[in-house]
Amino acid sequence: MPYVNIKVTDEGVTMQQKQQLVTGVTQLLSDILNKEPKTTFVVIDEIGLDNWGIGHDLVSDLRQKTNQ
Amino acid sequence: MPYVNIKVTDEGVTMQQKQQLVTGVTQLLSDILNKEPKTTFVVIDEIGLDNWGIGHDLVSDLRQKTNQ
Amino acid sequence: MPYVNIKVTDEGVTMQQKQQLVTGVTQLLSDILNKEPKTTFVVIDEIGLDNWGIGHDLVSDLRQKTNQ
Amino acid sequence: MPYVNIKVTDEGVTMQQKQQLVTGVTQLLSDILNKEPKTTFVVIDEIGLDNWGIGHDLVSDLRQKTNQ
Amino acid sequence: MPYVNIKVTDEGVTMQQKQQLVTGVTQLLSDILNKEPKTTFVVIDEIGLDNWGIGHDLVSDLRQKTNQ
Amino acid sequence: MPYVNIKVTDEGVTMQQKQQLVTGVTQLLSDILNKEPKTTFVVIDEIGLDNWGIGHDLVSDLRQKTNQ
Repeated sequence: MPYVNIKVTDEGVTMQQKQQLVTGVTQLLSDILNKEPKTTFVVIDEIGLDNWGIGHDLVSDLRQKTNQ
Repeated sequence: MPYVNIKVTDEGVTMQQKQQLVTGVTQLLSDILNKEPKTTFVVIDEIGLDNWGIGHDLVSDLRQKTNQ
Repeated sequence: MPYVNIKVTDEGVTMQQKQQLVTGVTQLLSDILNKEPKTTFVVIDEIGLDNWGIGHDLVSDLRQKTNQ
Repeated sequence: MPYVNIKVTDEGVTMQQKQQLVTGVTQLLSDILNKEPKTTFVVIDEIGLDNWGIGHDLVSDLRQKTNQ
Repeated sequence: MPYVNIKVTDEGVTMQQKQQLVTGVTQLLSDILNKEPKTTFVVIDEIGLDNWGIGHDLVSDLRQKTNQ
Repeated sequence: MPYVNIKVTDEGVTMQQKQQLVTGVTQLLSDILNKEPKTTFVVIDEIGLDNWGIGHDLVSDLRQKTNQ
């Protein structure tokens, strides 16, 4: 019955990586808390870089500074 | 003052169905908990099939297996 | 596979009312979107009155004004 | 370490307004609770007007009524 | 119609500070996005120190190291 | 910058298990998406058994049926 929500910035997460995250998290909950995989939800939200702020900055600006 | 968030997979929920969900949930909260509809929020998130995992699988894969 | 989160103020929601909310919401998702009840999660969060603000006020203050 | 999630309707929030929201909320948490900006996350979700209900109505319908 | 959720660690946030957060965030949304305070929700979640992890550590452990 | 929220039923998750979940999830995000642990948040919510419904039932009822 766990519900896990993973929020990451929208920077090209591949389907394979999403599968790895789902499998990895589901396995962790099974191993650590003995939770049933068939009723374990993992939902991944990919957030636009303009829509995520950290330390007063939008991530889109942070990425631009890093690329300069 | 209730805030209700409904997360479903992004599989063609129509505007009419969204209206039915909003009306139905708002009415439930009014009937059961006497909550004021004018300050009852219902937010529907439609999640991509690659972004929802259950039982180690991505829903997109599950749907493919079902359609084969 | 729906995940529904209901946030209400912590004002004595009874177990029976929680059961009615769970049944009602699960039935709505089954009727409207044909979702499988066995993989429909409904999570109810009861929020302290000091922890919910609306229109600049804490709900605890609003309730006090109403009761005076 | 605060995590703040702002959900608003998807009605043309500009990048500049998002920056103002991030800066304003981060500053509030620093001033009021002495939280470190470098580990303060602010995530903005822009919700489609068909996906937000209030008082039995979808916001898209409310907006149409207002514009008539 | 904004819904804002603020998650902070459960470290003695006073009612006055909660009021300041609610007022400050509501005012920001009014000033920046012209949102109506009467339908602006701000919900504050206070998370136990054992229930928040950052950089592989539980915050409770981080606080212990800082206090030694 | 990932934010991960894990919701599980409130059934005696130990501090050690919480540490394992935090470490495991943080490591997954580092290995799979190369995310920086120092800005990876993992928040664990423990939900009362009366507050979690699945398949029309409250988990508290499900647990009672299982224990009979």
